[in-house]
Amino acid sequence: MKARRALYAGSGSFVVEDYAVQSPGAGHVRIEVAYTGICGTDLHIAHGAMDQRVGVPAVIGHEMSGRIAELGPHVEGWAVSDPVTVMPLDWCGRCPACRAGHSHVCHDLNFVGIDSAGSMQGSWTVPAQLLVRLPDDLPLAHAALVEPAAVAAHDVRRGGVRAGEKVVVVGAGPVGMLIALVAGAAGADVLVLELDGYRRAIASRIGLHTIDPARSDVGRLVTKWTSGAGADVAFEVSGSASGVGTATDVLAVRGRLVMVAIHSVPREVDLFRLFWRELTVIGARVYEREDFEHAVQLVAGGPIPAAELITRIVPLDEVASAFAALERGGEVKVLVDCG
Amino acid sequence: MKARRALYAGSGSFVVEDYAVQSPGAGHVRIEVAYTGICGTDLHIAHGAMDQRVGVPAVIGHEMSGRIAELGPHVEGWAVSDPVTVMPLDWCGRCPACRAGHSHVCHDLNFVGIDSAGSMQGSWTVPAQLLVRLPDDLPLAHAALVEPAAVAAHDVRRGGVRAGEKVVVVGAGPVGMLIALVAGAAGADVLVLELDGYRRAIASRIGLHTIDPARSDVGRLVTKWTSGAGADVAFEVSGSASGVGTATDVLAVRGRLVMVAIHSVPREVDLFRLFWRELTVIGARVYEREDFEHAVQLVAGGPIPAAELITRIVPLDEVASAFAALERGGEVKVLVDCG
Repeated sequence: MKARRALYAGSGSFVVEDYAVQSPGAGHVRIEVAYTGICGTDLHIAHGAMDQRVGVPAVIGHEMSGRIAELGPHVEGWAVSDPVTVMPLDWCGRCPACRAGHSHVCHDLNFVGIDSAGSMQGSWTVPAQLLVRLPDDLPLAHAALVEPAAVAAHDVRRGGVRAGEKVVVVGAGPVGMLIALVAGAAGADVLVLELDGYRRAIASRIGLHTIDPARSDVGRLVTKWTSGAGADVAFEVSGSASGVGTATDVLAVRGRLVMVAIHSVPREVDLFRLFWRELTVIGARVYEREDFEHAVQLVAGGPIPAAELITRIVPLDEVASAFAALERGGEVKVLVDCG
Repeated sequence: MKARRALYAGSGSFVVEDYAVQSPGAGHVRIEVAYTGICGTDLHIAHGAMDQRVGVPAVIGHEMSGRIAELGPHVEGWAVSDPVTVMPLDWCGRCPACRAGHSHVCHDLNFVGIDSAGSMQGSWTVPAQLLVRLPDDLPLAHAALVEPAAVAAHDVRRGGVRAGEKVVVVGAGPVGMLIALVAGAAGADVLVLELDGYRRAIASRIGLHTIDPARSDVGRLVTKWTSGAGADVAFEVSGSASGVGTATDVLAVRGRLVMVAIHSVPREVDLFRLFWRELTVIGARVYEREDFEHAVQLVAGGPIPAAELITRIVPLDEVASAFAALERGGEVKVLVDCG
């Protein structure tokens, strides 16, 4: 049997080709992939910035949905045609992080779809323990948003967001919007800051209170909004130096700043304010299984309006155009139809 | 009745003079001050760096011990000659921080001894609610260390240090040493990093495991010490850019970095590592009453060897020489005898 796959071939180029499908080994399942979403890391890979880590040529992709097509030996609790997504973390189980119960940030983590083959292919074989069950009535296109929603669920959980708290989200890319939605679903009052007009428009359309930080005195606005206290939680999702500054500035005494974005260079941080207001800065990376389960509920149950966030679906054969569309801007979430 | 006081007169100069003692008003007590310790903030004031805030001329000093000399009207629960120290925080009770239960970092905090008259005088009147009771058998010179020990107790509590954890303290000034002692008393294994040979010698003498970070590969050493995991908690007490870097580098996955030192300029922070290892950075400022009560126990009960940390006691009339000794170095804690 043959299936079709997109091979990232280095330096921003993709090759789409047929390949021979093999049966899954012990403890593995073969998934017929329905959709694969493209995230910021995939874009980064397509720019050639991670060629050494991914090992060109490579099948990338880790935000996905599909149905089980075949079970390998010794797989219990799953059946062919079950709708699933995959939590793409394969940890060693032996390192200090794993032994301390933090296997999602394993010292030797295999991030499936980056460090090993991903889901931009019609047929994908993964260890069964990575499977996450989807509700039967959840459209599979929507389910491709579970992985980024799990990132957001993890970030909101790391921030300890509680009902009634005032939350500021700096940056309204897909993850920023999802964080705002998850925090809102937890009962927080959320203010989103975003410089880009298109993203602001989408964020407003899905009901997020969104402002342009370039045209507002954010400090004054947050002070007034919080009756002089400052925000309880801020999420830095912009990846910019100024975003770090804004997120630090808006917080109340004992406020929590969750660092979501990847800052590849050290950033200046106002440690005096951190001290003076007894702030906490919290690093947050990927997710744990409970975040994935929570994300399934959020995508299936209403708080995350998947249909509004998916702005384009591209056939696998046109995968390069999906990346090109994201480069151009004017998109939120672009999916590749792998079926 | 007259008493003697040291007046900070601006630009590093002190005037020692007699003044007329007044009886305390309602809710206040007059304390016969025994000893006042000098801390880094006092040194900063004596350099003229805080003249506007302290309002020259001013009586400074806030690390103290003494006995109640006179009770004002409506003071309950205290008697003349009770040994006391003072928790020098006078908060507004109305601001958002106070309303949220964080009055020790009140938006409008009166830090007694900086923002209002301090204890470098024979007779000091304070609100009775600032009093902290001392055990009868605790030498009053030792009790002058309760305030900095309360800082350390607060820092260790903010860091959530638990028995068996590996803790790195960056900087062995008085507060760094006290943090190491308090963390050790909580059952942690503590490693102290200090560049200054004199401080290293004192730290070693009081039983702290202390190394010179300029002559060791700290990262390798901590990795080995922690079997590859990294430290559970780091305390940044050096106030230096390199200290921030070291404290970030040595931490395990989910490690906690407590920012104790005052960084008057923004510092570069490795936010990628913060994200990658899901670190938490925790601001810690002054103390709460439970920290003060804990500090009394630690100074009275043995974990804090006050006699070893007090390297000089100077009469009030020679207060300038106490500051000069600290400037020269080769001291840990210098007390002014105010009796």
